[in-house]
Amino acid sequence: MRSEAPLDRAARLLPGLGWLKGYDRASLGADALASLVTAILLVPQSLAYALLAGLPAQAGLYASIAPLFAYALFGSSRVLAVGPVAVISLMTAAAIGSLELTDPGEKMAAAGALALLSSAFLLLFGLFRLGSVANFLSRPVVHAFITASTVLIIASQLRHVLGIDMHGATLPELTLSFLTGMPGVQLTAIVVGLASLGFLLAARSALPGLLARAGTPAALADGLVRAAPAILVAVVTLIAWRFDLNAATGLSIVGELPSGLPPFAVPVVELETWRALIGPAALISLIGFVESVSVGQSLAAKHREHILPNRELVGLGAANAAAALTGGYPVTGGFARSVVNDTAGARTPIAGVFTAILILGVAAFLTPAFYHLPKATLAATILAAIWKLADIKETWAAWRYARSDGAAAFLTLFGVLFLGVELGLTLGVAVSVGMILQRTMQPHWARLGQVPGTHHFRNIDRHDVIVSPHVYSLRVDSALYFANARFLEDLVSRIAAQHPETTDIVLMFPAVNFVDASALGSLREINARLAEAGIRLHLSEVKGPVADGLIQAGLFDELSGNVFLSHYAALRTLDPKTTLRAEGVASS
Amino acid sequence: MRSEAPLDRAARLLPGLGWLKGYDRASLGADALASLVTAILLVPQSLAYALLAGLPAQAGLYASIAPLFAYALFGSSRVLAVGPVAVISLMTAAAIGSLELTDPGEKMAAAGALALLSSAFLLLFGLFRLGSVANFLSRPVVHAFITASTVLIIASQLRHVLGIDMHGATLPELTLSFLTGMPGVQLTAIVVGLASLGFLLAARSALPGLLARAGTPAALADGLVRAAPAILVAVVTLIAWRFDLNAATGLSIVGELPSGLPPFAVPVVELETWRALIGPAALISLIGFVESVSVGQSLAAKHREHILPNRELVGLGAANAAAALTGGYPVTGGFARSVVNDTAGARTPIAGVFTAILILGVAAFLTPAFYHLPKATLAATILAAIWKLADIKETWAAWRYARSDGAAAFLTLFGVLFLGVELGLTLGVAVSVGMILQRTMQPHWARLGQVPGTHHFRNIDRHDVIVSPHVYSLRVDSALYFANARFLEDLVSRIAAQHPETTDIVLMFPAVNFVDASALGSLREINARLAEAGIRLHLSEVKGPVADGLIQAGLFDELSGNVFLSHYAALRTLDPKTTLRAEGVASS
Repeated sequence: MRSEAPLDRAARLLPGLGWLKGYDRASLGADALASLVTAILLVPQSLAYALLAGLPAQAGLYASIAPLFAYALFGSSRVLAVGPVAVISLMTAAAIGSLELTDPGEKMAAAGALALLSSAFLLLFGLFRLGSVANFLSRPVVHAFITASTVLIIASQLRHVLGIDMHGATLPELTLSFLTGMPGVQLTAIVVGLASLGFLLAARSALPGLLARAGTPAALADGLVRAAPAILVAVVTLIAWRFDLNAATGLSIVGELPSGLPPFAVPVVELETWRALIGPAALISLIGFVESVSVGQSLAAKHREHILPNRELVGLGAANAAAALTGGYPVTGGFARSVVNDTAGARTPIAGVFTAILILGVAAFLTPAFYHLPKATLAATILAAIWKLADIKETWAAWRYARSDGAAAFLTLFGVLFLGVELGLTLGVAVSVGMILQRTMQPHWARLGQVPGTHHFRNIDRHDVIVSPHVYSLRVDSALYFANARFLEDLVSRIAAQHPETTDIVLMFPAVNFVDASALGSLREINARLAEAGIRLHLSEVKGPVADGLIQAGLFDELSGNVFLSHYAALRTLDPKTTLRAEGVASS
Repeated sequence: MRSEAPLDRAARLLPGLGWLKGYDRASLGADALASLVTAILLVPQSLAYALLAGLPAQAGLYASIAPLFAYALFGSSRVLAVGPVAVISLMTAAAIGSLELTDPGEKMAAAGALALLSSAFLLLFGLFRLGSVANFLSRPVVHAFITASTVLIIASQLRHVLGIDMHGATLPELTLSFLTGMPGVQLTAIVVGLASLGFLLAARSALPGLLARAGTPAALADGLVRAAPAILVAVVTLIAWRFDLNAATGLSIVGELPSGLPPFAVPVVELETWRALIGPAALISLIGFVESVSVGQSLAAKHREHILPNRELVGLGAANAAAALTGGYPVTGGFARSVVNDTAGARTPIAGVFTAILILGVAAFLTPAFYHLPKATLAATILAAIWKLADIKETWAAWRYARSDGAAAFLTLFGVLFLGVELGLTLGVAVSVGMILQRTMQPHWARLGQVPGTHHFRNIDRHDVIVSPHVYSLRVDSALYFANARFLEDLVSRIAAQHPETTDIVLMFPAVNFVDASALGSLREINARLAEAGIRLHLSEVKGPVADGLIQAGLFDELSGNVFLSHYAALRTLDPKTTLRAEGVASS
């Protein structure tokens, strides 16, 4: 262990480098080819997602460079490809949009700040091993969120396909600005947008069959289908440049993008802006994490590997920090690009590094080539990539399966559409969590009686037992905490009111695994109220750790009654007559 | 039942009128006296809280009129006094402040909209009997919230006492604007503010003793102590008017208030504003409800009455709707005024109605009298009323009792101070709820074996049992839902990896009370992944309602294995050799 090999040490410090051992020429070739295929897909997609996020197009390129290096060093999945994705871009648009900035530089700074905060959340979750926070997003809520987000993305991309000025973050706002913008609809944009969309859909559905019939080798055919968006971008850009469609018809184009390396700077925004971005950053980090882990897990299962959620958090945190410092915006593991990367034969994170280097080359030297690229074509690449994600079937299935799941899902769906992504998602999570707590809010409880001839006490509704006339035995079958503390208060006050003959209530605690501070407060109040009514409160069979806490807090001293080790001891002390008779019934 | 008396019918339709039966002259006298005492306390407090909320002072008066009528009709507590309160005023200031409005009329409209939305939340909760949502606010979180809010209120009231222009919704912002505003400190304001504060504190601490020694009758002494704020307001206003302190020294005064009835109008604000106010309104309705119920319950316990939380929601909803329609802002049941009302002898909600009529008279005719009232004096009445609420002891006690409770409380405390009331409270609730779910996220589970000589199966760690070599029996002791669904996926994949000899896994479900859509999805994935690994998945002892749901969702058909009524039947089918031998061990 003392003479650790340099590569081993690196692999231990940077878990992402575990694959370094045994990396060979074959792997290098496979990674290089996969990175080329991924980069070709990624460049137009990055530009398009940046526009969706309401940012200058170069932000998309920048978000596809440094984060890939960072993830290669710190991430846990070998083939996950990080970068801008549709839903996170929409959430970024909502977060930045609410700041009402107009200057593109300020918007990019705010987007960087958002990525930095997301990074902080991801790293914090990773550091404290809180990967399980993602569990709070139930499947139906996530499905409904993605469906509603997709609808919003489609609605918002109409602006580029129609060439009208639309704005808004919810369906009513988008519809309104669509209706008011209709008169300004731009014919060239529609033609270019629909033609692009038609080409992309046809390339995906019809091209494979056509190429197969034409006898094209499968690998080449597959490559052509994957390269369709890049080919489209090249052809449409050439046409727009040749006929100068922007000047001639007013067609919206990408325009001038800066050339060179991504800027390196810590994003600078006002304190007020940092604060406004905390909530959105938390949601973005959660959704990004869930998306990334589910993509990573489905690819890992295929390769019989295992994703470590807490390490994944660190990898994504590093990727977002890298995005924040290099002019990018929040990123996560994307499904489409990861699958492309994987099927193109990527073996290690080196593929991601190569992809990043290729995109760096594009950002440094090729941005002038995108000057005449019509925004309508970029919008078409988004629409072609995501329209299938709008899937209401899952939500209906959830509703049919369980009303509570369905309710949370539909609330998320309509919440996102009508109130915006952040409020809608928060609503869905709050409702699904609330409904689970609601189920635990009324814990099971039972009145107990003594089983004749024994020292045992059982539920009087299920067993033939003997009950003391003036001692009420109450067993509560749940941990006591804030969500059910008030229920216990109500229960005991009802018992006290309905059984005026009661002089003592014994709470039997064998199933009480913990008592939080709220429940402690409730026990105090129950004790005080019963004392006013002349009833003593006792406890029995309190578990060790629970007892320690209650003793330290002083409850045992305050108690009007006593604490008994066994419930039998309590009844033997408080009502010896009934207790002994119950035992005697059997012995006689 | 057919010839229902009019009063009975009214009492049934308007639960708040239950006290109408048996109302007599003595009650009327008691209520009238109590209402006068309460009104004298309420007028200066209402003006002060309106300023705290960042609204024109008359909004406080308006919020103390119509809501009292509405609560008298629909509320459930006989002595609860509703109106503006400190914490809700601070939350209103935060909500309205974030809109960055400057016109006082627009601010009042936004405050009305906030009250209307709060009313909607309260009525919705009441309608769907969701009074239990209040349970999500654990005691330590509520205590910490009130403490931090009090600190913010004290800090924000310094502006009036010092006569400088301070703004901000968090401690850093308030500190910063305090430091930059220091040079502009206003001497008269300090003198008036400190003198007022000193008078109020002295009146409360020293006056009762002095009056007692002077032989003043107890009732009169008590009245004098309670009237101290009103006396102070009158005296200081006279001085400020006589020496025209506003013109002479620049002392900030209340200035012109409109005279007449409260305006009657539905608040009109932009769609964007409504949306921005939804979140704050939800929090205000929750906090208002919790405060009101806890005040109501402590008074009810004294009178051996019972508060019905769901009816209380309707009463508060009606009160807030009334505030919204008459130029007011969010209201709730206040501790100080309810206690005054109660100790002054109020017997029925008629006392509230009388109070409202008295304040209506003030709003209609006496507002010119408040022209010269210094804002520093109003700030002093707030400071004197609330400084005791800043109590860190409870938070420390929670920390000592249980780290999880303490963490949630301190997070709330610092969240409110440094991020603002809304974010801080949300953080506290989210963390306390999250920690509870965390506890249930890893349900108890056991590997089972057959008890020799029986058909029973028990935990292999605790009992001497016989285990099948290739059938893994797994019992999960918890409902399966989104928060623990992923745990189950992990558990089963670990088992499959660690026991390569396994051909069948039987999940025993006797303790699974429900399976939500997320867990259903996990069971599907577990089944598919095990099938790929050549392992069949079976279920046993599935409860009726759970089985119905799973059958309808198609899981039973998808399952690679079978569903067995008893676990014994499963093992008897899957590994008859071991099972029969285990039985034979006993019989031989």
